[in-house]
Amino acid sequence: MSITVYELAGADGRVRFSPHCWKTVWSLAHKGLDFERVPVPFTGIAELGFKTLPVIRDGDRTVADSFDIAAYLDDRYADRPSLFGGEGGQGAARFIERWTILTVHSILGRALLPDINSCLAPQDQAYFRRTREARFGGTIEAVSEAGLKLLPGLHDALAPLRITLETQPFIGGGRPLFCDYIVAGAFQWARVVSAREILPVGDPVEVWFARMLDLYEGLGRKAATAAAAA
Amino acid sequence: MSITVYELAGADGRVRFSPHCWKTVWSLAHKGLDFERVPVPFTGIAELGFKTLPVIRDGDRTVADSFDIAAYLDDRYADRPSLFGGEGGQGAARFIERWTILTVHSILGRALLPDINSCLAPQDQAYFRRTREARFGGTIEAVSEAGLKLLPGLHDALAPLRITLETQPFIGGGRPLFCDYIVAGAFQWARVVSAREILPVGDPVEVWFARMLDLYEGLGRKAATAAAAA
Repeated sequence: MSITVYELAGADGRVRFSPHCWKTVWSLAHKGLDFERVPVPFTGIAELGFKTLPVIRDGDRTVADSFDIAAYLDDRYADRPSLFGGEGGQGAARFIERWTILTVHSILGRALLPDINSCLAPQDQAYFRRTREARFGGTIEAVSEAGLKLLPGLHDALAPLRITLETQPFIGGGRPLFCDYIVAGAFQWARVVSAREILPVGDPVEVWFARMLDLYEGLGRKAATAAAAA
Repeated sequence: MSITVYELAGADGRVRFSPHCWKTVWSLAHKGLDFERVPVPFTGIAELGFKTLPVIRDGDRTVADSFDIAAYLDDRYADRPSLFGGEGGQGAARFIERWTILTVHSILGRALLPDINSCLAPQDQAYFRRTREARFGGTIEAVSEAGLKLLPGLHDALAPLRITLETQPFIGGGRPLFCDYIVAGAFQWARVVSAREILPVGDPVEVWFARMLDLYEGLGRKAATAAAAA
């Protein structure tokens, strides 16, 4: 029986931008599981009885939160390729998740606000603007302007990742693991909503992200972008 | 047969300050292996035919570099507690090593230069000053002064670690792994050479480091400090 994954989507339901949902979509592909992707607009989350996305339904089990979903999948489908590569990988993946939130999301999550808003349906735009403006304490345009000024600093902030990728092809080591999906989710978020160049071509992080986009028959690369959908 | 670990030491051979050597000492204790610790001054490294420390000798095998030593120990003594907690832990540990070098060592390695120098024997002080002043492009006093100005920024830089430790007791998860020794090595380095408070008491990172010092019958806590040796 196929697993259902509920994913945040734009006005065009093909546009799936959520970094957290991407972590789960890649996780399901990594495990080699059959899954069906269901688009959900921001204002549809509560209607389904959920607080955040992604959520998966696997038979009678419902699991929320990309990290918890990865842990569930590794536990439930232990005979399939591991997402964490052992308990040590799970512990360290939490550190990498926190690092990604503080280093990458803190900048992109501000800079991309108007781009995300642009790809939403009208009722979602109203919701998005209200909740984000309350969270960041400013209009999404002003917060984005400040975020864009931080963008050049992202290059330096990515240094630990860059020098890791000089000695191994993936953050997980020889092959991609959940920690790779954590970081790639953030760059896929940017890639789906904006044509802005976030990672300079040829940068080891960009080269790694290109490898991530190619995984599972180009699952990430084939994703609809807001620009193409417009 | 006992493993020999060659460790960098001060004028007082009991003073073992190297962050990298601490990673290996904790690694050996983690594996529950018998080991003998041999102090080596900076100017004694080349005499032994080594380039850097730590180095371990295990029978007829000689292994250098704390990360390579950890990998060797997990491979050679696979029946004992794993240092990486699986292949995923090993991949991610490399990221954590790079992060620690760029985030923690980059500040402490400057700020502590005169403190490290003070605990060395005269011939080592000459070597240390010459090599470090060439590396950093300034006197160790001037580089330290600039490094001390970066010290307040360390608090923010540790944020990913701090919030990770809010949800799990160790970076490795439920128990300490090599990734914990990587980060703890840096703080032990500071603790051994300097009485300066690097981690405010009660900070989640300080609470974790206190736990690290207590491991293996207080192996880290019992370490001789330069201040106590003086």
